[in-house]
Amino acid sequence: MQERCNRIPIALQVHTKTHKNPEIARMQLRQGAVGICCQKLGEAEVMVAGGIEENILIPYNIVGEQKLVRLARLARRARLTVAVDSEYTARGISEQLKKDGASVGVLVEIDTGGKRTGVQSPQAAVELAQTVSRLPNLELRGVMTYPSRIEAKPVMEETIELFRRAGLPLTEISGGGTGAEAVSKEIGCNVTRSGSYAFEGLERINTTTNPPNPVSCATRVIVTVVSTPTPERIIIDAGQKRFERNPPNPYGYVVEYPEARIYAMSVEHGHVDVSACSHRFRVGERLMVIPQHQETTLNLPEEVYGVPKGRIEVVWPVAGRGKMR
Amino acid sequence: MQERCNRIPIALQVHTKTHKNPEIARMQLRQGAVGICCQKLGEAEVMVAGGIEENILIPYNIVGEQKLVRLARLARRARLTVAVDSEYTARGISEQLKKDGASVGVLVEIDTGGKRTGVQSPQAAVELAQTVSRLPNLELRGVMTYPSRIEAKPVMEETIELFRRAGLPLTEISGGGTGAEAVSKEIGCNVTRSGSYAFEGLERINTTTNPPNPVSCATRVIVTVVSTPTPERIIIDAGQKRFERNPPNPYGYVVEYPEARIYAMSVEHGHVDVSACSHRFRVGERLMVIPQHQETTLNLPEEVYGVPKGRIEVVWPVAGRGKMR
Repeated sequence: MQERCNRIPIALQVHTKTHKNPEIARMQLRQGAVGICCQKLGEAEVMVAGGIEENILIPYNIVGEQKLVRLARLARRARLTVAVDSEYTARGISEQLKKDGASVGVLVEIDTGGKRTGVQSPQAAVELAQTVSRLPNLELRGVMTYPSRIEAKPVMEETIELFRRAGLPLTEISGGGTGAEAVSKEIGCNVTRSGSYAFEGLERINTTTNPPNPVSCATRVIVTVVSTPTPERIIIDAGQKRFERNPPNPYGYVVEYPEARIYAMSVEHGHVDVSACSHRFRVGERLMVIPQHQETTLNLPEEVYGVPKGRIEVVWPVAGRGKMR
Repeated sequence: MQERCNRIPIALQVHTKTHKNPEIARMQLRQGAVGICCQKLGEAEVMVAGGIEENILIPYNIVGEQKLVRLARLARRARLTVAVDSEYTARGISEQLKKDGASVGVLVEIDTGGKRTGVQSPQAAVELAQTVSRLPNLELRGVMTYPSRIEAKPVMEETIELFRRAGLPLTEISGGGTGAEAVSKEIGCNVTRSGSYAFEGLERINTTTNPPNPVSCATRVIVTVVSTPTPERIIIDAGQKRFERNPPNPYGYVVEYPEARIYAMSVEHGHVDVSACSHRFRVGERLMVIPQHQETTLNLPEEVYGVPKGRIEVVWPVAGRGKMR
């Protein structure tokens, strides 16, 4: 991913939501990433505690007194940037930081079709940016959007033009989404945020034409067959509480038997259709499953194991797992 | 729930998966429950550590050396019953318990249409029960099925008849499912397992005709509005990592504004359609959301708060949360 971004070229700001682990984040920074992203204050606290103090972006509206107090505390220890899409959010942060003698960088978030957060027009982005630039203890740094899509180009260009005309700083123009690095560049960004590439899930892989391998999909959950009720169906000891309720069908990919289809998940059981497999499954057998969406699957366990060539070489705590706020 | 079971009458064995907390389990036992259920060994360990030692059912095939060693250890401290649906599982448990000088009760699980685990016929249940009755350190106690459905009556009656003819013990005939207590009785069970009634989610409630109240649905997640991008749409600071990926639409019920519809959840954001609300939402506002499926939602936080009449009276650790095995 770093090589891809170097070639484009575009700065890579790695999203740590996938692994939630400061050591892996430091590996990504050593490869050349310009900073990290954390989607939650609780995850940013874990990264700072793990030794990362430079260029942490929280691309999320931080709202409410409890979070603001924690943000101010963290901002005294690390260089933070936050995203805002309303004057309310910007003012709340500014007031708390002023009180606590801290400051943060700010990106104005613009919605370019993702229909999540973000102001709704280039004009609204500029107006909010002007407000931010006048508020104490905030350093306006630019704009951000998510995800980077080619359709966003006219809106981004207009936004950039309006920022320039208004004399507003545009140090950062930040896009995001694993796989969207070149698109980020194309729509005018100088930074792209990317996270899930670290371990990768099945989401962006056509498993029929391109079976996942340890590089394309490093995450594996080891499960045990606990029941073989019929020749067509086996039950594994991993359901929603192990995988999180992954997007349906096939929920995950059984590495040893790609023809097996995990067709349902109850809370503690995975239901697997094995009618297309010639293998005769038996209770007690272990299987490796690649989850559909590793970010939420990896929010559940306390640790993960680094296993190159069949040997455990490292045990990583999922330091940022299960953070609620 | 205890009153309902007393009236039927049928013994209630409470499933702790909903709250994962020994103190609440002890409250349920004091109300008259005959025992508890834990779907995972890790959750049973938490209950034993929390002072519950009598009549713990793990209605799950325990397979694999690591789990068996833990099962044996726990069986020396508490009276356990497990479910099995294969000779492999039964033999594995028997061998480990013999080695460690412990014993457990055993229920043979029969699939009566739930298509999850369980042997496939009354005849297969009797054969497995005969095997279990000959294995050392296992005490055959009866049969179990899940969920209790009226269609299961002929299969259950045949199973009971075959057990009696074979002279096999039938101390327990166990059915399950919140709402299926009377059905359990009707199909021949003397025990029913029920869990989600403790807090209750939206699953069994028609929110249009019967708005949830603190008794019918006690679980609430307090969320904050972090963005109001358009008049029709607000974004709350709670997505899949706060609610777990609940069954879609409406994902949850907004207590204050039932017309609001949580139509999508990304990892960290809840997307709410408020076009039917006359209220004008603002950033920073707090809302209470009842999750669709509280069992998995409550697998994420470290603690929950008991708040009768608007005052926090108790802080409960979710002691069994996030157990992987």
